[in-house]
Amino acid sequence: MTYGVLRRPDAAFPPLLAQLHDPPRRLHARGDPVGVLEQPAVAVVGARSCSAYGAQVARTLSRDLAAAGLVVVSGLARGVDAEAHRGALDAGGTTVAVLGCGIDRDYPARHAELARRIVAGGGLVVSEYEPGIEPAPWRFPARNRVIAGLALATVVVEARERSGALITADFALELGREVFAVPGEITSALSAGTNRLIRQGAAPLLGAEDVLAALGLEEAPAPRAEVTDAAAGVLAVLADGPRGQDELVRATGQATSAVAAALVELELAGLAAEADGVHRATRLPERAA
Amino acid sequence: MTYGVLRRPDAAFPPLLAQLHDPPRRLHARGDPVGVLEQPAVAVVGARSCSAYGAQVARTLSRDLAAAGLVVVSGLARGVDAEAHRGALDAGGTTVAVLGCGIDRDYPARHAELARRIVAGGGLVVSEYEPGIEPAPWRFPARNRVIAGLALATVVVEARERSGALITADFALELGREVFAVPGEITSALSAGTNRLIRQGAAPLLGAEDVLAALGLEEAPAPRAEVTDAAAGVLAVLADGPRGQDELVRATGQATSAVAAALVELELAGLAAEADGVHRATRLPERAA
Repeated sequence: MTYGVLRRPDAAFPPLLAQLHDPPRRLHARGDPVGVLEQPAVAVVGARSCSAYGAQVARTLSRDLAAAGLVVVSGLARGVDAEAHRGALDAGGTTVAVLGCGIDRDYPARHAELARRIVAGGGLVVSEYEPGIEPAPWRFPARNRVIAGLALATVVVEARERSGALITADFALELGREVFAVPGEITSALSAGTNRLIRQGAAPLLGAEDVLAALGLEEAPAPRAEVTDAAAGVLAVLADGPRGQDELVRATGQATSAVAAALVELELAGLAAEADGVHRATRLPERAA
Repeated sequence: MTYGVLRRPDAAFPPLLAQLHDPPRRLHARGDPVGVLEQPAVAVVGARSCSAYGAQVARTLSRDLAAAGLVVVSGLARGVDAEAHRGALDAGGTTVAVLGCGIDRDYPARHAELARRIVAGGGLVVSEYEPGIEPAPWRFPARNRVIAGLALATVVVEARERSGALITADFALELGREVFAVPGEITSALSAGTNRLIRQGAAPLLGAEDVLAALGLEEAPAPRAEVTDAAAGVLAVLADGPRGQDELVRATGQATSAVAAALVELELAGLAAEADGVHRATRLPERAA
């Protein structure tokens, strides 16, 4: 395991991070920070207790961003943060977790293995705090400024009103960087913060290509997802909204076993996912082709 | 039954409608058009094959707009249009249905009774076409310009890409009037058109108060919705997203019978609704207080 420390004003200290009003004096890293922090990065953040929608968007979006060569930065928290790191790893991409404690702490404990995978995949676990520093709630807003500082743009996937992810967005705005928010249903408290961000002028994010366009990057060739006719039929129904399996059987007129097989196929292709007995498309069909 | 005809340039012809590039020469009405068309009106339009989310937002929004004294204008189509008319009627308000055929046609046939209730409630069924003219697909875009022309602002609740509701929005924009779109999940094809409208500059609609604020109107006092503790507990879970009844039992720790009673109570109070076995909040808790 490599540990590294970057000090301001060393040349290797990330120049984007140095643009903060109050940049950290040091950045400790699990993994080798040189190189990784020179690559263009996007922050993907959001609610800890996110919905199935938020989890799936975080994962699919981060997978697409990583596939296009962007580093995905997040906070290793449960919910949106963890899904963002996992999505980048799914694509074989690089992801950076910013902690609000020392990099020798496994916090949160449930993500010790995820942190290990992040570093093994060429990514980093970083912190401005010295090893040994324990997590504390009042360190998280400070941590959020590092997330925003490392990234060219920040995407908020789901956020309640007064969510910590909105603090990250505020830091990004202060830095004059692009802030995206993912639209959600106006009856969902988990989208209240993101929908309000859009009303306040954040760019609504409809897909990874919006981030790439804003950064002047080429869109990665969409991964070919050739699916069977049965799976395409199920996906067409899911494009109009989440459905239970019984409803999919009714709507498609296919046998229960055929629908079950189609759902497995779609899940493996990253086109649909299931949570609490409800199946959802993870992207629009025109994006999946 | 009163029938009326307004002719341009009679004084009673709605001045807002006359602002269209190509205004109708006559407006036929079932009901008495004088008075109704002088009141401030908002168009609420959207997909025919809308989702449960779209149907519920259309209904709740239109109910709130009508309760605040606005006339709700729509197209009597199934889906969002019909729910918009019903919501206005729920509030004892006035609503206007604009047809793409003669006002003596019951089109669509399934909404003959709804049209009757609209007129009985002091509203109107109107058309620029002479009685006897049959519905035809190519008349619907022309009909949409009348919807936009009668309204101070247009709200698109749900719309696929290339949906007719986007044509209504285009007419409203051409007239320099406010266009709102309701945000929805980026994985839903039914929100693809509305989310794109927002990206193109339409105001994201988070609640009826956004329309009232844009029109410089006072917000109507929110109807007091005092609910039992059991119902409040269920509503708090629904605020984080749609749930099946079994999941509500698990999440609240209440007995199945108590949850069932709470759901009936919430539905009667207009705070939640059920479709396809899935229960949803129809508004955010802070708006329901």
